[in-house]
Formats: sequence, structure tokens, C-alpha cells
Amino acid sequence: MKNAKKKIKAAILIIGNEVLSGRTQDLNVSFISNWLNVNCGISVEEVRIIPDIEKKIIFNALDLSKKFKYVFTTGGIGPTHDDITALSIAKAFKVKYGFNKEAYSILEKYYGKNNFNDGRKKMARMPSGSSLIYNPSSAAPGFKIKNVLCLPGVPSILKSMIGNLKKYLTKGKVVSEKNVSLYTVESNIALELENIQNRYLKKNVTIGSYPFFRLGKVGVSVVLRSDNNLSLVKCYNDIKKMVSLKKIKIFK
Amino acid sequence: MKNAKKKIKAAILIIGNEVLSGRTQDLNVSFISNWLNVNCGISVEEVRIIPDIEKKIIFNALDLSKKFKYVFTTGGIGPTHDDITALSIAKAFKVKYGFNKEAYSILEKYYGKNNFNDGRKKMARMPSGSSLIYNPSSAAPGFKIKNVLCLPGVPSILKSMIGNLKKYLTKGKVVSEKNVSLYTVESNIALELENIQNRYLKKNVTIGSYPFFRLGKVGVSVVLRSDNNLSLVKCYNDIKKMVSLKKIKIFK
Repeated sequence: MKNAKKKIKAAILIIGNEVLSGRTQDLNVSFISNWLNVNCGISVEEVRIIPDIEKKIIFNALDLSKKFKYVFTTGGIGPTHDDITALSIAKAFKVKYGFNKEAYSILEKYYGKNNFNDGRKKMARMPSGSSLIYNPSSAAPGFKIKNVLCLPGVPSILKSMIGNLKKYLTKGKVVSEKNVSLYTVESNIALELENIQNRYLKKNVTIGSYPFFRLGKVGVSVVLRSDNNLSLVKCYNDIKKMVSLKKIKIFK
Repeated sequence: MKNAKKKIKAAILIIGNEVLSGRTQDLNVSFISNWLNVNCGISVEEVRIIPDIEKKIIFNALDLSKKFKYVFTTGGIGPTHDDITALSIAKAFKVKYGFNKEAYSILEKYYGKNNFNDGRKKMARMPSGSSLIYNPSSAAPGFKIKNVLCLPGVPSILKSMIGNLKKYLTKGKVVSEKNVSLYTVESNIALELENIQNRYLKKNVTIGSYPFFRLGKVGVSVVLRSDNNLSLVKCYNDIKKMVSLKKIKIFK
């Protein structure tokens, strides 16, 4: 992985009617975003969830590809009729859609020549010029073309492949996070947090405030993020001071 | 709720750094989408997740507002500095941002005059001309302006408010779903499913195929959706016939 000195921005494109309809709970956004942030210093700045419709995949893949350094897609690279991601991405970039020799050979070996039916062969078809993203759990590879990296939708398979993205990515400045959970309500600390945020805006620290309700208790998680560790720690200490002055208890 | 004879399309706009960073797992998309589909015949056709950045909220709210009959936003309507949804939506529609009298009075009553601080008052500020979406769990209302309906990000509060959306929505044709889970792999039924899908394309039935891995078992969920019940049942029966011919077991 190469290194860049600045923040690198990415988008995720979730392709799948089942996620849009609410039938399937997406788990890939939080996993990919966390992994990119911690391991690659890449920050996900936009996510879109769209249906399995060719023209929508083409439009959104191109749009996000222009706006972000990387686009990660999930879903639609399996063997069935509703798996149209590879074909759509080929059309988006106006390249041929056909068998990738390496993918074909990986899949033929995995299934055995006699069981390598048309559905399985389809998973070796991708945009011409793609590089493979290897799949240690179920063989069928993902692929990268230009700045678009296509992954499967099944979370367990996606997780098994994620490390194989690294060689295609330039590493950005890692954003660190500190957080503290408080026994209070947001409106009790809103003014103080705003003042602290204003002091740290130029130092690139962002403060988020998130109410929660768990085990019958009400609280607020205050989350600080920055690529500047020194400012992050200073800001964190200011918040701890404020909390102590207001006699607010901290969740352990 | 008024009734329309055709399908009604909507979008969801999730506003929040915490969802983008992967820190918070979104649960609102699946809940809202399911609720709209079952109760209102409204189909979610696009979701976007964006950061708490004013110009991004303005751009995406307007863009989705033009493309869809309804836009549902979540997040950013609380009392803290990072809650900028109401102000941004006011700017998007070029209307004033100020106190909504009814919301002010609801919140003043809820907190009591002596505890109605500036953070709490902020939750009564919204785009001029908004209608309220009442909140039975924590008082602070959501709001509707034009075709944009703004809800909170905390899932439990959002759930408590969802019924209060109904009066603002026109009911579309409800899409029904049937599904069957099979002891097989996708590539074993890909060809057959494609043939069945092709026969039912003009009858408005869509067939989705989703592999799963649970409790150590591998299977495929086949999901049929249609606003035409007769075709849905016919298509379902064709799939059951195919499954029986191929001697595939059904998950009970």
C-alpha cells in the first residue's frame, strides 16, 4: 500500500433490491467503513443504496467514481439473473464484458470441470481489464476496474476478502477517535459542546454528540475525530473538564 | 391517507457522520422501508447516507426531492451543534428558519418553563411553513416541508413517530412478497430462475435470489415481489414445481 499525506475519500455503492425493500439489513457499510478508516486512512464520505437496475448502476457508479478517489460496490456479482453488477460496470466504463481467464481458471478448479455450469461460469465474466480481488471463502473473485472495486453482498464472504483490497489502495492519514459516554441528556451540554467545537474547528477536530437509550438508561456518547492526535487529546481533556465542572457522571 | 392506483416511489436520506464512519449501525433504512411498503404501498428506490455538512444536505435533499414523490430524512434534528438538518432544509427550500409556535409550546410544556434552555429551544426551530410530525416518546417533533419529511436518528424514537407520517402520505399500490428458502446453491438454479423470471417480466413479478449461510447450513432464499397477486402466486407455483423437479429440499 502506497502512502498519501492527506485524507483520502471514498464512497460505497450498495446494489440490491433486498436491502432497499428492508428485507435484508445491510451490515456491509459499517464493516467496510470501519476497516477502511482503521487500516487504510480512507474515509467513507457517501453511501448510496440502489436497486438491481442497469441504468441506475451505470449512473451511480460513474457519478461516484468522478467524485471520490475510490468506490466500493457490494452485491450483484453472483451467478443468477439478478446479478448484473459486472455487466453494468463494463457498460459504465464502455469496455467489453467477457471471461477473465484467471477467474475462469480459479472457478473451474474450485468446482471441477464436470460441475462448472453456466451459472458458475458467469462469475468469471467481468469488465475487460479488471484486476481480481481474491475470495478465500467461496472462490468467486471480486474485481477492480479504474477506481471502482466490486465486492459480493454476503457479509461473511466480503469480510474474508477485505484484506485483499489493500494492494489496490493508497493509504491516507488515519483519523483517530476518542469518545466518552455520559449520564446526561444532549440539551444539558449542547451549549458547552458547541463552544468547544468552535475552538477546535481550525484544528480539524470534529465533535459528534449521540444520544442513546440502553438497558433503561439515558445517556450521550460524545465522539471526537481528528487526524491530529495532539489536538484530539487536548479537545478530549477540555470535554472531560467541562463534564467534571457540570458534575456529570461518566458511563464506565 | 389518500389512495393512488400506481406505485409510489420514495428515497431515504440518512444524515450522520456516525453512520458513515461505521461507528453506528444504521437500523432505520430497513425499518422505514418495510413500514412504507406494508402500510402505505410506497417503495423506497434509493437511499443515501451523507455527513453532517450543510451543502451536502442541501444538495441531496433537493436532488432527491425532485426525483422522488417523498424523501424521508433521519438524523440531525436534536439540540446540539452537529444537528443542522432543519437549518439546511430551510436553506434548501429558501425559506426562513425560525421557531415553530406549536413545537415551541409542546417543548416548553414537556420540559417546564424553568428547564427550557437554548439547546431545547433549538428543537423548536425549523423551516417556515413546516407541518409537525408528533413525537410521543421524547416530545421534540419531526417536520414535513414540501415532499421532505424529517425524522430523528435514534431508532426507538423514530419508531414511536412513524404512525404519525400517515396523514401526509398518499397510499400506493402495495407490493406483495412471497419467498421460499432452499437447500441448494445459487448456481444450481440460476438457469431455471432466469427462465421463470423472463416469463414473468411482463407480469411485473421480480425474482430475487439471495444466498445465505446460517447455523452452518448453506441455502438460497428466493424472493418474489409484485403488485399483481395472481401473477405472484402463479410464479411462486412455477418455482415450487421447478424445485420439486430438481429434487431440492425446502427449508422449513
